[in-house]
Amino acid sequence: MTSDLAPTTTHEAFDAVDVIRVKRDRGTLSAEQIDWVIDAYTRGVVAEEQMAALNMAILLNGMDRAEIARWTAAMIASGERMDFSSLSRPTSDKHSTGGVGDKITLPLAPLVAVFGVAVPQLSGRGLGHTGGTLDKLESIPGWRAALTNDEMMAQLENVGAVICQAGSGLAPADRKLYALRDVTGTVEAIPLIASSIMSKKIAEGTGALVLDVKVGSGAFMKDVASARELARTMVDLGTDAGVRTVALITDMSTPLGLTAGNALEVRESVEVLAGGGPCDVVDLTVALAVEMLAGAGREVGESDVRAALSDGRAMDVWRAMISAQGGDVDAVLPVAKETEQILATSDGVLTRLDALDVGVAAWRLGAGRARREDVVQAGAGVEIHAKPGDRVVAGQPILTLHTDTPERFARALESARAGITVEENPATVPATQLIIDRLA
Amino acid sequence: MTSDLAPTTTHEAFDAVDVIRVKRDRGTLSAEQIDWVIDAYTRGVVAEEQMAALNMAILLNGMDRAEIARWTAAMIASGERMDFSSLSRPTSDKHSTGGVGDKITLPLAPLVAVFGVAVPQLSGRGLGHTGGTLDKLESIPGWRAALTNDEMMAQLENVGAVICQAGSGLAPADRKLYALRDVTGTVEAIPLIASSIMSKKIAEGTGALVLDVKVGSGAFMKDVASARELARTMVDLGTDAGVRTVALITDMSTPLGLTAGNALEVRESVEVLAGGGPCDVVDLTVALAVEMLAGAGREVGESDVRAALSDGRAMDVWRAMISAQGGDVDAVLPVAKETEQILATSDGVLTRLDALDVGVAAWRLGAGRARREDVVQAGAGVEIHAKPGDRVVAGQPILTLHTDTPERFARALESARAGITVEENPATVPATQLIIDRLA
Repeated sequence: MTSDLAPTTTHEAFDAVDVIRVKRDRGTLSAEQIDWVIDAYTRGVVAEEQMAALNMAILLNGMDRAEIARWTAAMIASGERMDFSSLSRPTSDKHSTGGVGDKITLPLAPLVAVFGVAVPQLSGRGLGHTGGTLDKLESIPGWRAALTNDEMMAQLENVGAVICQAGSGLAPADRKLYALRDVTGTVEAIPLIASSIMSKKIAEGTGALVLDVKVGSGAFMKDVASARELARTMVDLGTDAGVRTVALITDMSTPLGLTAGNALEVRESVEVLAGGGPCDVVDLTVALAVEMLAGAGREVGESDVRAALSDGRAMDVWRAMISAQGGDVDAVLPVAKETEQILATSDGVLTRLDALDVGVAAWRLGAGRARREDVVQAGAGVEIHAKPGDRVVAGQPILTLHTDTPERFARALESARAGITVEENPATVPATQLIIDRLA
Repeated sequence: MTSDLAPTTTHEAFDAVDVIRVKRDRGTLSAEQIDWVIDAYTRGVVAEEQMAALNMAILLNGMDRAEIARWTAAMIASGERMDFSSLSRPTSDKHSTGGVGDKITLPLAPLVAVFGVAVPQLSGRGLGHTGGTLDKLESIPGWRAALTNDEMMAQLENVGAVICQAGSGLAPADRKLYALRDVTGTVEAIPLIASSIMSKKIAEGTGALVLDVKVGSGAFMKDVASARELARTMVDLGTDAGVRTVALITDMSTPLGLTAGNALEVRESVEVLAGGGPCDVVDLTVALAVEMLAGAGREVGESDVRAALSDGRAMDVWRAMISAQGGDVDAVLPVAKETEQILATSDGVLTRLDALDVGVAAWRLGAGRARREDVVQAGAGVEIHAKPGDRVVAGQPILTLHTDTPERFARALESARAGITVEENPATVPATQLIIDRLA
């Protein structure tokens, strides 16, 4: 109320309330206002409650392309940038917006490295029903997520692929902002989602980027229109920042592959690297690899990429990559102490296996965490025995639930059962299209 | 993102993020959600940043009549309620949304008391360019704003009028919320303004309430449509809570009366109580008194009310009221050490004397505060020698600026000069209508 009257008592370029008002009143934030608000928020001069109000105004009133680009640039400027230009190979990176059973990074990074493109995959831990890549890899005995920059560069040069923890120096404004959005109902703003993802990816300094934008019940974006809007926004941001960026919009109405959980997903990834594994996981891995290679200037055909899975070359890179980070590639992966099966109760066709319900079940079994400080169970998760479209007979197992802590079964079963629909004579069998769209 | 998945770790009835999402997505908050969020915010369970996000969502997406009523009731329930039912007289109260030179409470409270209606006027201090009633009265030597409840009841019974500081026990949620809105750009939300004002007024337990909703440059509401919306919302809230409530929408494009400042306004109020004073101040005082009396069940005609100003009965109550609170009614009021005049630079008609500019000038002279902890100058302010529509000749004083600290003149003059327009031959002379509308 009084901010426009108050005498200037600081040397700040702007007043937080004035900046909030611009967006509240559907105006356009200037480049200087955006730079200031992100910097002042990082410094603690703009308070959490002020940023919360601004975020809600952005969620409801939007930002235009120039505002989003500047917002992203300001978040990048809040921290350090990585530089891979000293490597002898081009770099290409992938980012998934997160889904259930999405272990694609695991076979994908070594697969792309086979063709001479370096893959610096800086990943995170899971929170909520979508698993985290680092949590999955940490089920491998000895494997460590934290690398120094020098270790990372050496591994990229020598092995060609690294999956490790993002350093805290990249886009610190984003980390602070994401924690705030999480508790203030402002996660679901496309400009904020896009700038959060892209600020980290651009700061990582990759030359090319392929985005896997998930859509469906298990994804953040529930409908194709918003997935497309998010993809468009991110591709524009990447392109504007000089990163060759492509997005695939892919289905997340049902889990990817036949496992959701940490060690369970590693096992499935190794099957893919051994030339086997579920079709959907293989198809998506190959499609993303082709895009990543093209982004890095290597036109490799789909059949050549598939060959690198079946002939063991991708597996060789995987073994080198895991070993380089201390992982014992021959160790037996952890197995949960207890299992419980869900059986089909009638004959028919499985017409629905809901990604969110399966993801929540895996999470409740101990595969995910509710709070950042929670410890995940390596063996916990869900094994899938039938996928949508499959015929099932009464008594046949549809899911196997794994956990070390059987008191978790009740609530996990509740969620998993709610995700299953078997129909005796369905009018149509769902034809799920895995790759829905491509944006460049 | 994860709140709907997180296991219940507290015994709270709701999760703040879920409540925020309802309003963010243009839904209607349930009575239980509103009760919880106000209570949990008062207890510190809902964080400042969460309430900031909710406030911005309310500002942008609105609340319906039932939501606003419940929000108000929840704020009332956060603290204590006063009860005047033991008094031998009915009570009637007035609230102004704030303006420049708005000293109406000073002559109004004793004037209404003349007719056997008790006026419990719980007031605040000024912040920004609108003065505070308590600041004005504190320019009277000895007068004290803080009374116990017993002192207040005794004064209402014996004198009939009291103007004092609102206790901190009334609607504590509102105090916390107002401080938050002030720094988050969410002051300007009609549902929040209305519930803030009305929660305090209803908690004060008055039987009748007259609202003076100001509109114009010096007011919070800049246009008649929003003033009418605020007035309608507040009248509905009062009526729903069993308080007989009426609103007048009155002009605040130019200052009320001929003074803006603390002791300056007390002096002008005493002139009105002595049967003199500027017409606009007298007219508005009388109009509001008629409404306050009618609300309390006393139908008193305008001429009878005016008579109580001219025959000294209102002055008698004023003297008793000020004395009861330790004020020396015969003391000389403080006068500022320095003055500076603004003269007309040409002959013509004063077509504009802007309320905001004059208010900011008075504030910069030391009459108001920028921060709650600031001390105001009793003698500082602006004296007005010509009002819009008046003919002026070159060299004639239009304003006199008063302050104890002459280094303040430069910026005050800047604001005051910007508020003055003199036109040689104006096509029309502005006809300001003081009372623009009445809502019941």
